[in-house]
Amino acid sequence: MAVYNFSAGPAMLPVEVMKQAQEEFCNYGNSGCGILELSHRGKLFEPVIRRAEANVKELLGLSDDYAVLFVQGGASMQFAMLAMNFLNGGTADYADTGVWSAKAAKEAARFGKVNLVCSSKESKYNHIPAFDTWKTTEGAAYLHITSNNTVAGTQYQAFPETKVPMIADMSSDIMSRVFDPNKFAMIYAGAQKNLGPSGVALVILRKDLAERATAAVPTMLNYNTYIADGSMFNTPPTFAIYILALVTDYFKKLGGIAAIEKINNAKAAKLYGFLDSSDFYKTPVVKEDRSRMNVVFRTPSEELDALFVKKAAEENLTSLKGHRLVGGCRASIYNAMPMAGVDALIDFMKDFERANG
Amino acid sequence: MAVYNFSAGPAMLPVEVMKQAQEEFCNYGNSGCGILELSHRGKLFEPVIRRAEANVKELLGLSDDYAVLFVQGGASMQFAMLAMNFLNGGTADYADTGVWSAKAAKEAARFGKVNLVCSSKESKYNHIPAFDTWKTTEGAAYLHITSNNTVAGTQYQAFPETKVPMIADMSSDIMSRVFDPNKFAMIYAGAQKNLGPSGVALVILRKDLAERATAAVPTMLNYNTYIADGSMFNTPPTFAIYILALVTDYFKKLGGIAAIEKINNAKAAKLYGFLDSSDFYKTPVVKEDRSRMNVVFRTPSEELDALFVKKAAEENLTSLKGHRLVGGCRASIYNAMPMAGVDALIDFMKDFERANG
Repeated sequence: MAVYNFSAGPAMLPVEVMKQAQEEFCNYGNSGCGILELSHRGKLFEPVIRRAEANVKELLGLSDDYAVLFVQGGASMQFAMLAMNFLNGGTADYADTGVWSAKAAKEAARFGKVNLVCSSKESKYNHIPAFDTWKTTEGAAYLHITSNNTVAGTQYQAFPETKVPMIADMSSDIMSRVFDPNKFAMIYAGAQKNLGPSGVALVILRKDLAERATAAVPTMLNYNTYIADGSMFNTPPTFAIYILALVTDYFKKLGGIAAIEKINNAKAAKLYGFLDSSDFYKTPVVKEDRSRMNVVFRTPSEELDALFVKKAAEENLTSLKGHRLVGGCRASIYNAMPMAGVDALIDFMKDFERANG
Repeated sequence: MAVYNFSAGPAMLPVEVMKQAQEEFCNYGNSGCGILELSHRGKLFEPVIRRAEANVKELLGLSDDYAVLFVQGGASMQFAMLAMNFLNGGTADYADTGVWSAKAAKEAARFGKVNLVCSSKESKYNHIPAFDTWKTTEGAAYLHITSNNTVAGTQYQAFPETKVPMIADMSSDIMSRVFDPNKFAMIYAGAQKNLGPSGVALVILRKDLAERATAAVPTMLNYNTYIADGSMFNTPPTFAIYILALVTDYFKKLGGIAAIEKINNAKAAKLYGFLDSSDFYKTPVVKEDRSRMNVVFRTPSEELDALFVKKAAEENLTSLKGHRLVGGCRASIYNAMPMAGVDALIDFMKDFERANG
């Protein structure tokens, strides 16, 4: 029986990718070795990292103005790294739309002045503040946003217009929907939600921004190191990059991001449609800002939330517990979650409501 | 036919480990998901990272004075991170015994004064300078050494006595031989040679040194973040840590580091014994400082070096090319390389000498 894993990350990967990786695990490209065991400078691995790069460029429609980089440390490392490179004692604008936004702003404050252009913290991050209320800084080093808020379950449906370079943490919705990358000077994303396993962050950087990086930052924290050496200044996380290459191969085969977005929209519409039809389940998120990746909801009580998570797991619907900071329930329905998983979840939710409503 | 992969890293892993990881790749612990896909906060992954930690403690005989941490970015990130935490404008002593030592010293110079206590650079790093010639600094923040020099093929056979905290980069010989960890305040090692795949560095840190860490460093670069959260402040590189747990399980099964050292000594003795008996192959390394992990050698000409590497690969003896900075040939014979691989290499070397001598 199929298991549907609703984890917020690391999250389920496409079945095809898992099967292929398993099949060639001990013998990659007929080398007699696993890709795990191969030198990153060898003939077999280098094409993998270059393919991963090219896939990202193609899928997102990036011009040659952008560099595609693979960096370790996850999005949390990016919080510090981007500020080390680009803040340099100046002022940066941050939109405070969730716990990860707040963490990003907190790290940046070590390297300059941070101005929160908006915050939905008072309302438990249940919405994205309207752009026309944002108090931006003239001449800010950059504006930082978080395109999807994994914990609160909100998502930008459009992006603001800015005069300063816009940097987005897209960890939890990258490649889930079509958007115009040219609005952004930098995009970063931990891979472990839509792109692959944990252990690698994708960084997309416009080269003119990279040129403004502070030279004094350590080698491994300077984006220009990654640009100069094709993310191979030192040994990269080879296996994570290999899986990212397979996942993006698969996205291309599906028909690219437009095709994936269509499926994601249908999955989210079905699940929210059910939530809206129910008096038992409630979602705290303002309707127009709902995330199509992380659907947060609650039953009538904390006890029933816990029972829901437990009973669902018994039915092979796993990792439905809300983030430890907020409680409740959360279904993460990233690219790899099939419609069948959403259907199975809704069926279970109906049964659970009948038994406990 | 077996392939013997002499890569300096990422390097071959124990066959048993590869087989187990392949077998449970898509279904870990009967969860219906791969370990790659599981939440790091879930019931299945947490025991893995705690087991990896416990294995390291047990195998190295670490007291509770030490914390075992898993950090991303490889040893190159540690070069900067340790200086950010512990140098703080003071003076650090560095033993310059190879290109990686030099890189470590260069990064540290961003954060304080670096004093090279010794250097074998003039003689192409072909030896470890005698300890009684080292010019150490009274009251240095720490002394940094590189226990095994992967590129030059040298290795400390004993460690110096110091009054200041000693920090060692053991990336290429950790767990390959018995040593007294209590001599060290910190040990770090990229996993991709003896311990697992790339994407995780093992950091062993004496807690009294950790207490001296500069508070101002970014969260993800502060060792105390990793100590406080058991290396789980953010999503760790779960798959790399899982493989490290399997590899260290395997080391325990073999009888621990003493048993492994015995095999490593026998492998190195056989290969160096053959090199010494040959007039065709030469090793530039001073005899008493030879590495038991990375055996560097040359044929009579660069052309023959290249032919050697090519012909060996045709016989399934792969990745024998020397580091791109120094050329020649190099056989890395880490823990996972069986004696049969060394035997096959020596047989090939004999044939190659007969054909080209």
